Amino acid sequence: MTVHIGVIGTGMIGQDHIRRLTDVVTGADVVAVTDVDAARAAEVAARVGARALPTGQDVIADPAVDAVVVTSWGPTHAEYVLAATAAGKPVFCEKPLATTAEDCLRILEAEQAAGRGLVQVGFMRRYDPGYRAVKRALDGGQLGHPLLMHCAHRNASVPESYRSEMAVQDTAVHEIDAIRWLLGEEIVSAQVLTPRRTRHRFAHLADPQFMLFETESGVRADLEVFVNCQYGYDIQCETVCESGTVRLPDPADAIVKTATGQRTGVLQDWKQRFGAAFDLEFAEWIASLHDGGPTGPSAWDGYAAAVITDAATEALHTGRVVSVRLKDRPDFYRS
Amino acid sequence: MTVHIGVIGTGMIGQDHIRRLTDVVTGADVVAVTDVDAARAAEVAARVGARALPTGQDVIADPAVDAVVVTSWGPTHAEYVLAATAAGKPVFCEKPLATTAEDCLRILEAEQAAGRGLVQVGFMRRYDPGYRAVKRALDGGQLGHPLLMHCAHRNASVPESYRSEMAVQDTAVHEIDAIRWLLGEEIVSAQVLTPRRTRHRFAHLADPQFMLFETESGVRADLEVFVNCQYGYDIQCETVCESGTVRLPDPADAIVKTATGQRTGVLQDWKQRFGAAFDLEFAEWIASLHDGGPTGPSAWDGYAAAVITDAATEALHTGRVVSVRLKDRPDFYRS
Amino acid sequence: MTVHIGVIGTGMIGQDHIRRLTDVVTGADVVAVTDVDAARAAEVAARVGARALPTGQDVIADPAVDAVVVTSWGPTHAEYVLAATAAGKPVFCEKPLATTAEDCLRILEAEQAAGRGLVQVGFMRRYDPGYRAVKRALDGGQLGHPLLMHCAHRNASVPESYRSEMAVQDTAVHEIDAIRWLLGEEIVSAQVLTPRRTRHRFAHLADPQFMLFETESGVRADLEVFVNCQYGYDIQCETVCESGTVRLPDPADAIVKTATGQRTGVLQDWKQRFGAAFDLEFAEWIASLHDGGPTGPSAWDGYAAAVITDAATEALHTGRVVSVRLKDRPDFYRS
Amino acid sequence: MTVHIGVIGTGMIGQDHIRRLTDVVTGADVVAVTDVDAARAAEVAARVGARALPTGQDVIADPAVDAVVVTSWGPTHAEYVLAATAAGKPVFCEKPLATTAEDCLRILEAEQAAGRGLVQVGFMRRYDPGYRAVKRALDGGQLGHPLLMHCAHRNASVPESYRSEMAVQDTAVHEIDAIRWLLGEEIVSAQVLTPRRTRHRFAHLADPQFMLFETESGVRADLEVFVNCQYGYDIQCETVCESGTVRLPDPADAIVKTATGQRTGVLQDWKQRFGAAFDLEFAEWIASLHDGGPTGPSAWDGYAAAVITDAATEALHTGRVVSVRLKDRPDFYRS
Repeated sequence: MTVHIGVIGTGMIGQDHIRRLTDVVTGADVVAVTDVDAARAAEVAARVGARALPTGQDVIADPAVDAVVVTSWGPTHAEYVLAATAAGKPVFCEKPLATTAEDCLRILEAEQAAGRGLVQVGFMRRYDPGYRAVKRALDGGQLGHPLLMHCAHRNASVPESYRSEMAVQDTAVHEIDAIRWLLGEEIVSAQVLTPRRTRHRFAHLADPQFMLFETESGVRADLEVFVNCQYGYDIQCETVCESGTVRLPDPADAIVKTATGQRTGVLQDWKQRFGAAFDLEFAEWIASLHDGGPTGPSAWDGYAAAVITDAATEALHTGRVVSVRLKDRPDFYRS
Repeated sequence: MTVHIGVIGTGMIGQDHIRRLTDVVTGADVVAVTDVDAARAAEVAARVGARALPTGQDVIADPAVDAVVVTSWGPTHAEYVLAATAAGKPVFCEKPLATTAEDCLRILEAEQAAGRGLVQVGFMRRYDPGYRAVKRALDGGQLGHPLLMHCAHRNASVPESYRSEMAVQDTAVHEIDAIRWLLGEEIVSAQVLTPRRTRHRFAHLADPQFMLFETESGVRADLEVFVNCQYGYDIQCETVCESGTVRLPDPADAIVKTATGQRTGVLQDWKQRFGAAFDLEFAEWIASLHDGGPTGPSAWDGYAAAVITDAATEALHTGRVVSVRLKDRPDFYRS
Repeated sequence: MTVHIGVIGTGMIGQDHIRRLTDVVTGADVVAVTDVDAARAAEVAARVGARALPTGQDVIADPAVDAVVVTSWGPTHAEYVLAATAAGKPVFCEKPLATTAEDCLRILEAEQAAGRGLVQVGFMRRYDPGYRAVKRALDGGQLGHPLLMHCAHRNASVPESYRSEMAVQDTAVHEIDAIRWLLGEEIVSAQVLTPRRTRHRFAHLADPQFMLFETESGVRADLEVFVNCQYGYDIQCETVCESGTVRLPDPADAIVKTATGQRTGVLQDWKQRFGAAFDLEFAEWIASLHDGGPTGPSAWDGYAAAVITDAATEALHTGRVVSVRLKDRPDFYRS
Repeated sequence: MTVHIGVIGTGMIGQDHIRRLTDVVTGADVVAVTDVDAARAAEVAARVGARALPTGQDVIADPAVDAVVVTSWGPTHAEYVLAATAAGKPVFCEKPLATTAEDCLRILEAEQAAGRGLVQVGFMRRYDPGYRAVKRALDGGQLGHPLLMHCAHRNASVPESYRSEMAVQDTAVHEIDAIRWLLGEEIVSAQVLTPRRTRHRFAHLADPQFMLFETESGVRADLEVFVNCQYGYDIQCETVCESGTVRLPDPADAIVKTATGQRTGVLQDWKQRFGAAFDLEFAEWIASLHDGGPTGPSAWDGYAAAVITDAATEALHTGRVVSVRLKDRPDFYRS
């Protein structure tokens, strides 16, 4: 009953998922790993009793590997997802699915050619209990149609290597998926405003950024991305509907009253904030492999995110409203 | 020690202020009133022991009147404020100070000619305890410079006579003043987006609207105006600064747990939400008249609001970003 | 229409009420004051244009005085309330109504002999918006019958002159009235437990104390009194009913997020916490004098509080459950 | 590396733990089960690929079984825990450890004779993230010494088979352990008050109950147990210390605003409320078996809970304050 997993990429997130698949989630066993840093791969492999293989293609080809997790450098994702698909093996790919829309389209075609769902993309927000409560409220019908969404994505700080485009591609991409998923609609345009910059930034970095998205039905979603907010990791999301609103809860924490006032803690990083979501994401993925294939974010969701982040990146560079031009959604990807 | 007040305009808000000056605030006495509806003026006058006079000019000229409150129809404000200023009498004018920027400029000149502050404009948010706590936090310096503001102004519903422009001129005008006051900066541009419309609207009405303002230093303030939100009167305001954020509190209410969950009430109208702010606004105004003249929102604030709402109205009509072109601020209006 | 007030006692609370009657509440004018410290009385009188009289009896007898406010030392209350009642003048008496149950009974008899309500006792909780919201929820009927109340009354600190009995007589007395008022029932027994003492106390002081009350219908109310809690002035009250619960809200305050977490302020003293309640208490009292007499806490409420605090004081001294033995409530005091 | 588990008792909680050990927690495998209802045991065994054995003693004796989980009827716990201990096998026993203090003492002796920790008792509160945050705050030292605890344990409803004593033995027992654990002290006395009964009760049932505990150092902990509160499953815990307070957070839930107000959901049962705590409890237990033995609530904690619930039961029956008489704690059980 155990799913034997091969992991491509043993960096921070790769190691975290290997730990998760080994120590947290039942029904999975990491049997093979690889990394561009062979020594690191060997070390990680030894820790969990897996074999370290030279390349990602070796991992995919390994007959002992039932399913593949891709957590390597973004530009290599497409190659591995395509190879896994060609091999008929389920593949979980951390975002992005691919770094170009063209590569995403190739994956869509390959998966359709395979005739069954094989690809899942790592948009873990969909597994967060708070987001799921929001989704239930929106789908419950009592609130009427959504009209507006107000989102914020704040990090305490980022390293100097973080460039302005990453606010779109690495950070906002999670909200882009969350907006699409919560609303059940495609985004049709993007705009990026650049407010006064924080002093706690690097010269090259536009931080914060304020993004505006419009959906097919005219919903407007705004998103503050602020990656040097200093105070913590803070995710906000409010959806305003025709008859009411629903807001994502903050994580629960003990309430302390002292001479400095009433205080609750603010989390400091995404691992704390979405740790339970990651666990559930993998638990459901592993369970789905026994039961008809992946049920999470699909290759289509990965493709849409790529096209939208491309548009938002252009919007950041030009200051203009940029249209999102998605291909027609194949029936294969309709739920 | 009592200030004798003449009130021009005895409609709903006029009557509410007369009640306030009579029953709530000490040190004031309403001695003369007028209204376009003479019968209504007579009735209101009788209720509080004041005299009903034929016209606003009569009220201003009345030697028994120490100070004037203007709560008549907006287009008549400028005339009365100018007349009171000419008569050297302090005048409290409900917003708008005037319906054109030109009339506001005339008032600025008249007041400067009078050589002392006589005019106060009715932006009551500045007297709300919650807004004041926000202002203290921002001025305290611990949060660093503001970068973004996220605001929402929601009404349960509006009558059919409410037109799209009123979302700017009657509704957003309060946030326009609040943004200027909280940040201590002028707004330099405005843009208005029109999201999907609620079904709970009239055919002529763009509701909700999503407004974007930029200030001199580059702060971006966004404002949702949603005047048929169905669920209540709800004012939200969060300011994001370099080292932290501050959020306007919701009004306190009893917390009830029953089989339908944990619940607190949502207020239903602005009178409930800002009743205490109105009381304090008049208490401080009356007190200021004994003590050097008005300390609240000035004619300059009324002028700036007029120019910004003009720009936002044009932005609504054109869909474009519209620049706000204020005259240079006279030293007279620097604090 | 103005009520001319004589104030007996110009200490801190007396001065605060004089300021309130002068600057905050309309329809009242303080015309005469007295104090054991004649110089202080003279100074306060001069400030508000009142006359300073030698004794409380002089204030009561003064034909210019329509109504009396008693804020003198507790042991003198009964004498002044009886004199005002004998003179047929409405009297507002800060708690306690009298320091012995016998004196309270004398006041009840005197007021009944006068044939109309003249006495109001200063239990200001009944005027707090939060408590009123709780009262409405309880009276609304949806929650069923109350079964339990959990209360806390915390002060940041008290001076060394504060003795253990004052936790009952000066502090808990407010909750004793609040419990009676919210439940609409009499308290029938009291018990006081003395937990581990805080180090931030004086050797003579049992702090905190934990009090238990039972009502006629068997509701159990518990009350933590902690007068050196260090962190602020904090009033908590939750009522548990057959079908739900209702909790007193904390005062609203701006929500600040910084590197130390999410924070809201805690008030530091009762003047901040109940300032609005005091204002409303006097506004309603003054209004009631034009309109049939006082509607607030009655002499019966003052008597009941005295008997219950006597029982609780005995309970503190003996460690036992002490029964509360109230006389039958005269029809005169049934609402 | 897998721990092979034998489960004694396949009722509701037993099945839930079997599911947990099979589907949620890694490193464990349920290999043998038993139940007084042999058919049920067979069915459960078949579902997870375990063997169904005739008796608990058979499970314990089975060489394939590394560790034992006891979820049978309470009166049988002691027998199985003693047998497992005699067999030198780690045993996780759902509360109660035993139904008499004498049996608990026998277990303490047996475990000490075994020379190493083998027994863990199922007090899952210690694994709840909220309680752990409270514990961290208390242990952090900033709050000073605890003085008071205010707790509530509310269930929406209980079946008619629930008797008054169960409020102590089955319900309050969780707070009794939480109080001991959070404070790091023993409870020395118990008292139970019976407030007015809810109409939503059975004739035989005292509901709610109000319990009072005192600890060695004089901390007073009060606990409302209300098992027919109608509105949900609600756990409250506030600790009042010398310099501040800390309160257990409510579970996070989406915040919905509609015409009925602002609402968050209330959980309906303990499985929802403590599901994550149960998962973590077993994950840590399984992990501890690889690493020196159990780290959770010990046989001493089970013994103390038994003696305290005995005292509280007597207190319920007599209405008196009942002393808790614990044996001296053996060094074996000092941390």
